[in-house]
Amino acid sequence: MAVLRLSTTGLEVHCDDPLSRLAGFLDSVLRGVGQVMFQNNSYAGLLFLIGIAYNSWLFAVAVLVGTVASTLTAIVLGADRILVRSGMFGFNGGLVGVALLYFLQPVPLTWACVILAAACCTIVMAAMLAAFDIWKLPALTAPFVFISLCFFLATARFGRLETTGFLPTAGLPKAAAVEGVASASTIAEGLFNGVSQVFFQGSATTGMLFAAGLLVASRMAFAAGLAGSLAGLLVAWGMGAAEPAIRAGAFGFNSLLVAIALAGTFLTPSWAAIAYALLGAIATPFVAAAAAAALEPLGMPALTLPFVLVTWIFLLASRRFPKFRAKPTA
Amino acid sequence: MAVLRLSTTGLEVHCDDPLSRLAGFLDSVLRGVGQVMFQNNSYAGLLFLIGIAYNSWLFAVAVLVGTVASTLTAIVLGADRILVRSGMFGFNGGLVGVALLYFLQPVPLTWACVILAAACCTIVMAAMLAAFDIWKLPALTAPFVFISLCFFLATARFGRLETTGFLPTAGLPKAAAVEGVASASTIAEGLFNGVSQVFFQGSATTGMLFAAGLLVASRMAFAAGLAGSLAGLLVAWGMGAAEPAIRAGAFGFNSLLVAIALAGTFLTPSWAAIAYALLGAIATPFVAAAAAAALEPLGMPALTLPFVLVTWIFLLASRRFPKFRAKPTA
Amino acid sequence: MAVLRLSTTGLEVHCDDPLSRLAGFLDSVLRGVGQVMFQNNSYAGLLFLIGIAYNSWLFAVAVLVGTVASTLTAIVLGADRILVRSGMFGFNGGLVGVALLYFLQPVPLTWACVILAAACCTIVMAAMLAAFDIWKLPALTAPFVFISLCFFLATARFGRLETTGFLPTAGLPKAAAVEGVASASTIAEGLFNGVSQVFFQGSATTGMLFAAGLLVASRMAFAAGLAGSLAGLLVAWGMGAAEPAIRAGAFGFNSLLVAIALAGTFLTPSWAAIAYALLGAIATPFVAAAAAAALEPLGMPALTLPFVLVTWIFLLASRRFPKFRAKPTA
Repeated sequence: MAVLRLSTTGLEVHCDDPLSRLAGFLDSVLRGVGQVMFQNNSYAGLLFLIGIAYNSWLFAVAVLVGTVASTLTAIVLGADRILVRSGMFGFNGGLVGVALLYFLQPVPLTWACVILAAACCTIVMAAMLAAFDIWKLPALTAPFVFISLCFFLATARFGRLETTGFLPTAGLPKAAAVEGVASASTIAEGLFNGVSQVFFQGSATTGMLFAAGLLVASRMAFAAGLAGSLAGLLVAWGMGAAEPAIRAGAFGFNSLLVAIALAGTFLTPSWAAIAYALLGAIATPFVAAAAAAALEPLGMPALTLPFVLVTWIFLLASRRFPKFRAKPTA
Repeated sequence: MAVLRLSTTGLEVHCDDPLSRLAGFLDSVLRGVGQVMFQNNSYAGLLFLIGIAYNSWLFAVAVLVGTVASTLTAIVLGADRILVRSGMFGFNGGLVGVALLYFLQPVPLTWACVILAAACCTIVMAAMLAAFDIWKLPALTAPFVFISLCFFLATARFGRLETTGFLPTAGLPKAAAVEGVASASTIAEGLFNGVSQVFFQGSATTGMLFAAGLLVASRMAFAAGLAGSLAGLLVAWGMGAAEPAIRAGAFGFNSLLVAIALAGTFLTPSWAAIAYALLGAIATPFVAAAAAAALEPLGMPALTLPFVLVTWIFLLASRRFPKFRAKPTA
Repeated sequence: MAVLRLSTTGLEVHCDDPLSRLAGFLDSVLRGVGQVMFQNNSYAGLLFLIGIAYNSWLFAVAVLVGTVASTLTAIVLGADRILVRSGMFGFNGGLVGVALLYFLQPVPLTWACVILAAACCTIVMAAMLAAFDIWKLPALTAPFVFISLCFFLATARFGRLETTGFLPTAGLPKAAAVEGVASASTIAEGLFNGVSQVFFQGSATTGMLFAAGLLVASRMAFAAGLAGSLAGLLVAWGMGAAEPAIRAGAFGFNSLLVAIALAGTFLTPSWAAIAYALLGAIATPFVAAAAAAALEPLGMPALTLPFVLVTWIFLLASRRFPKFRAKPTA
């Protein structure tokens, strides 16, 4: 009698012996990786992981350690089983893992911090589930943003936290001038770098592997994600953002996430929802530029804060516009 | 049979032909301008507009473009008709229009940004209506503050957004010394400049036209507004604020808005409510000074953020004090 | 017939004559001082007050003035009698009193500000009670943090507010190096300084008197408080915080408050709750370091903001973990 079965979204486990539970746990971890782009889908998670490993083994291990630590914390604390099983307590931990390894030296203390930070992600996630229940609003990657910024800011007080030098230099924001000239290669590279930046990776190939992961899970997510990354990039270009930042995908990943969230994840798909998602993806680069400038005196990156803010606002607003309906399953 | 009729607050439209709808729309826009000081009243809106035009045609056009764009967005998205009709989806857009034209160069890209920003104001407004429904708390000008600061902060990343040089210089806050000596003319000018600063205007005559608009709509709002502007000014003077800032009305407009909001707009009028509004108007300059200092490292103006914070706090608190009752119509 | 009686937590008043009401009011004030560490207990409040007076008469008077002013404001505004009687409208005012006298010169204007600020604390407290009712979440010392920061930030605009020079210098945060070597005396002094820092006092003897106050009111609070202060200190030491800051108790007081809040005040005591409180006390120094760095460009102290944030998050999250139950009386 089969107790493990592959479904269209990953592993189905129908037994409670230790081996099945381990298999179920590993499947939850892969779904956690997939949930970074809203996909409750182990195959998507696996492709995302392969995409990261293609660029850097270190970051792939960091994502796994973070996702495992936060998922385990949720199990130990007795969080809702269905949420744990669908990876909802994993994705923030996975992002914290890669963020800490990106901005802090890969020394043992940093790995210990990844485990503590990922455990804290689960607690912040549970807190936000409790707080946002009134509005039926998702927590998105807010726990990751909050916990990561805490650890990065703490480097200003804790001498044993060693940074990699990738954190922005603290300074006072000043009016930008147009830098560099965007070409066709800026657009092409920026489009896929925007996808790969969701996990802090700057590789067009990784971006393509991520896009493949999206395609496996949902054609709507694939189309919305690429269109979102492109929209963010084009708006930033039109507004005179620096060419290297555009090429690096810095204005793509937040728009990508907004577009997937609005066009097919939390709203019932419709032409109105697609137009609304496009408006969100267009507004996001402004919030991204503003958030980056607002954090400049602290020398901190904005991470996915712009995506979180724009998605919350557009989802809340959608309740007042009868054109849009919340997706029942989300 | 008359289908258009003037009521005490503006136009009444009783027909659905295109011309009546246009007249209704224009009336909604004027009410939107009036709502900046809580007046669902076209005559007040018209007098505010005349006051702005007296000082600068550019700003009058900017207010109109912003109010029209945000009201139209609300109609296209299918927002609640009664709210649209009373100008509730217009006033934040109007303020964003004048704010963007005040701090950014009047080039075509800025006008395009006004339309995008005003449209976004409507979405933030709808989001806040949905989020604050639990507390029966008004959104006030929070959408305007959030959207304006996003666009101003974005100038640090977007080279094609050109500033006018009126944004404060970014710097680290340090203890102030008493600057200048306040005279009777400081008080007299500051009082009416405080009124005109609600729309970023620095003209006592404009302030008097605004006051006339308030008087047309509500004697309580007129009296509370002037008393609020005066209270803010006197507290700032007593605490040793710089004389030029006092004269310019910088400590008046937030207190004016707090006083109108508490003394007659959201609480049932009573002596207790008037005393409570006065305490609010006295507390506001401290919050205004604090907000200005907090935004100094970003080189950003506090706009009406102090008014929003103080009014939210005092309104929420009033639910716990049986002396005060929420106004049923508000 | 006895109308005044001493109970295990303080005075019981059973009559409504003016003298009894005065006695009841003074008892409410002492409970307000006790509530700074969650103790609705006049004896604890008295011992806290003695501890402060041992170190400085000025601060003891400031705590009293602040607690009296905010409690009186609550009575005048007609706030809930049981809350007033248990000191819930006093503790934020008491903290504001000592904070303003610590960071501002003890001139008459500062004392006037203490009274205004304490009155505003009561309004912010009422606002938070109204806003947080949905989540059954306590306001903690958030009103104190918000109001104090407003007054300190306002020194950058109000020339007559004179600072003592104890406010941190505004600057841009940068990566810390390990400073100084912690010894046994660092740990011993830091442990009790961490207790005394709850009221801005830097005296191990004062810390011991505070601990005695906790012991009188609750053995659980005493044990959790000391363990929390120690946990915060040890984590900061392990992460390489500066030795003088560790010795001064800078990383102790927030963890102390988190530990008391979670281990016995707001959650039903259990081994799981104790472990959860310990995790909170361990996470708190990271948030404390982050908050201090985030406020560095403003030259502002983080006060008890880290305690407030961590406690809110852990309490909200506890609703999603069936192991923990909210304490019915809290």
